[in-house]
Amino acid sequence: RHYRIAVIPGDGIGKEVVPEGVRILEAAAEKFGFRLDLQHHAFGSCDYYAEHGTMLPANWKALLTPTDAIFFGAVGWPATVPDHISLWGSLLQFRREFDQYVNLRPVRLMPGVPCPLAGREPGDIDFYVVRENTEGEYSSVGGTMYPGTEREIVIQETVMSRHGVDRILKFAFDLAQSRPKKHLTSATKSNGIAITMPYWDQRVEAMGERYPEVRRDKYHIDILTAHFVLNPDRFDVVVGSNLFGDILSDLGPACTGTIGIAPSANINPEGRFPSLFEPVHGSAPDIAGQGIANPIGQIWTAAMMLEHLGEGDAANAIVAAIETALRDPASRTRDLKGSATTREAAEAVLRAFAAA
Amino acid sequence: RHYRIAVIPGDGIGKEVVPEGVRILEAAAEKFGFRLDLQHHAFGSCDYYAEHGTMLPANWKALLTPTDAIFFGAVGWPATVPDHISLWGSLLQFRREFDQYVNLRPVRLMPGVPCPLAGREPGDIDFYVVRENTEGEYSSVGGTMYPGTEREIVIQETVMSRHGVDRILKFAFDLAQSRPKKHLTSATKSNGIAITMPYWDQRVEAMGERYPEVRRDKYHIDILTAHFVLNPDRFDVVVGSNLFGDILSDLGPACTGTIGIAPSANINPEGRFPSLFEPVHGSAPDIAGQGIANPIGQIWTAAMMLEHLGEGDAANAIVAAIETALRDPASRTRDLKGSATTREAAEAVLRAFAAA
Ligand SMILES: CC(C)[C@H](C(=O)O)[C@@H](O)C(=O)O
Ligand SMILES: CC(C)[C@H](C(=O)O)[C@@H](O)C(=O)O
Repeated sequence: RHYRIAVIPGDGIGKEVVPEGVRILEAAAEKFGFRLDLQHHAFGSCDYYAEHGTMLPANWKALLTPTDAIFFGAVGWPATVPDHISLWGSLLQFRREFDQYVNLRPVRLMPGVPCPLAGREPGDIDFYVVRENTEGEYSSVGGTMYPGTEREIVIQETVMSRHGVDRILKFAFDLAQSRPKKHLTSATKSNGIAITMPYWDQRVEAMGERYPEVRRDKYHIDILTAHFVLNPDRFDVVVGSNLFGDILSDLGPACTGTIGIAPSANINPEGRFPSLFEPVHGSAPDIAGQGIANPIGQIWTAAMMLEHLGEGDAANAIVAAIETALRDPASRTRDLKGSATTREAAEAVLRAFAAA
Repeated sequence: RHYRIAVIPGDGIGKEVVPEGVRILEAAAEKFGFRLDLQHHAFGSCDYYAEHGTMLPANWKALLTPTDAIFFGAVGWPATVPDHISLWGSLLQFRREFDQYVNLRPVRLMPGVPCPLAGREPGDIDFYVVRENTEGEYSSVGGTMYPGTEREIVIQETVMSRHGVDRILKFAFDLAQSRPKKHLTSATKSNGIAITMPYWDQRVEAMGERYPEVRRDKYHIDILTAHFVLNPDRFDVVVGSNLFGDILSDLGPACTGTIGIAPSANINPEGRFPSLFEPVHGSAPDIAGQGIANPIGQIWTAAMMLEHLGEGDAANAIVAAIETALRDPASRTRDLKGSATTREAAEAVLRAFAAA
């Protein structure tokens, strides 16, 4: 087994945690007997933009298309490059051009992580958010009438296609079908957003008929966010549109205290294009450069990538090593009320991984 | 002082809790020396729809326009009438036709209410969500191309007008200005929703210049929901679009455990039309008819209405009575882990109100 991986650290703490993610990848290759061909890239960062005036080189598609996966850090440095340039010029472009139409994020209560919800224990909360990642509310279609005047009107379209909705639902139902609880929750708002959301509901029902074993329910997004806080043990697979999935996949990790350590996958399930793996956290300009960022997000991201590549045993071993490391207060970084540095926290995971 | 109030109980538990709200209103009128002219209406309910085939009579505007406020219960009975008929035929129509462009909801940790967040005490969390209530994501403009085929495309437009955005921002800044912390948080998603949301941000900045004393910040809606869970003590006034405000004003009460008891106001600040006051909770078909619904939401709603009418002392006295009642476990309903009936819980508030 041999994998070609593009490594793109990006900005801020991305540059500090990606090397730790790479270390665990190399350790896993060694231990589980596969080969990694890592191709490091400086593009997809605001530093690159400062030098070249673009976030990506002209031949980025040719460079990345032949890889098996993209191992991404974080992008964004608003002090020098506005978000709409840095994000739409890299991450959001990858998602769209590589048709990574699934955004997948685990929501899991981990040991040693302070949980903001009262009385919840590891094991209580363990589900996935599946987010549509290419269309919907992020269409960027629209414009302004009477610009700059009192009569100004600004319009943006939410676009849902049968193709786009059905394929994300299929992924979500397949995932639910593969899990013991076989339970799918759909995020909607058909009582208020009266055109696209009833359509979403209708496609969920149609797809559901093909999965008779999967129990399904739906909640409007407003009350669904409430249930994330009040009844997070109720969920197994939660599927939502681009915007709703975005919200739920930050809120879920927040409810489990893991927003700083949760991973995410941007997947092209057919494998026509490489999938991209990145931590949920961003480039964190406020703590960048101090060596105190939590590397667990990037390490857990490495596990998610290996899982996707078919190296499930290696992935499980990494997650287990993360859990072992987190149980020891001495290996927790500042965000987890510890005082370990990025290096120390990563070392703890590497040690647990080697020892297991 | 003399107020004409339309009373519309609506459906389900609305019919059980509105009479308790009316009782406190009458007690307040007596104690604080104002007069109430209460006009009870059966329309705006699914029962009415079953009989008349419409949610409202043809002359509803003529009936309601001369009132000073509408005291509303809850609408919806999906088993017999689809939500898009019951809601768009009543509540959402009131909001739009009466230009109730402000939806205002307090988020407050109350004594005796089980808080789902670990380690939070009453006093820690006390802010308002201000939601745009007439345009934005709820435009209902759009349609379907190639319906029923594989090529189907469904489009819905988010519409923001300068007029619509500026007036909600003005309300929110005025509110922030009037509060000790003078802090306004704007909900945005300008990094992903690249046309309407940058416009929203730009109007927030422009309006902010008129309020130099108000400290302002903004968060993308995804991370903002996370902060509601992680740092709810950080907020004072939070303003959002129709959809974002909707989400935040369910999530906020969920974080304080008050989703069953929080009130909300749909306000036409200019007073050209009556404003409408309703609890955050819905008609709750699952517990309707059992006499166990929590009446506090409707009672707190009565206080919010009186505040709006200029009876601030009466409003404060009601809120104080609610707090007194909630401190006694015997007067808590089932949703608050007690066993009081609707009547008993309401009686406890009435007693505290009379005694104060
Ligand atoms: C019932 C529904 C249409 C409504 C809304 O989304 O506005 C409700 O959630 C609310 O917040 O009042
Ligand atoms: C940075 C931003 C555009 C992005 C999104 O909204 O998709 C982020 O929040 C995410 O979830 O990956």
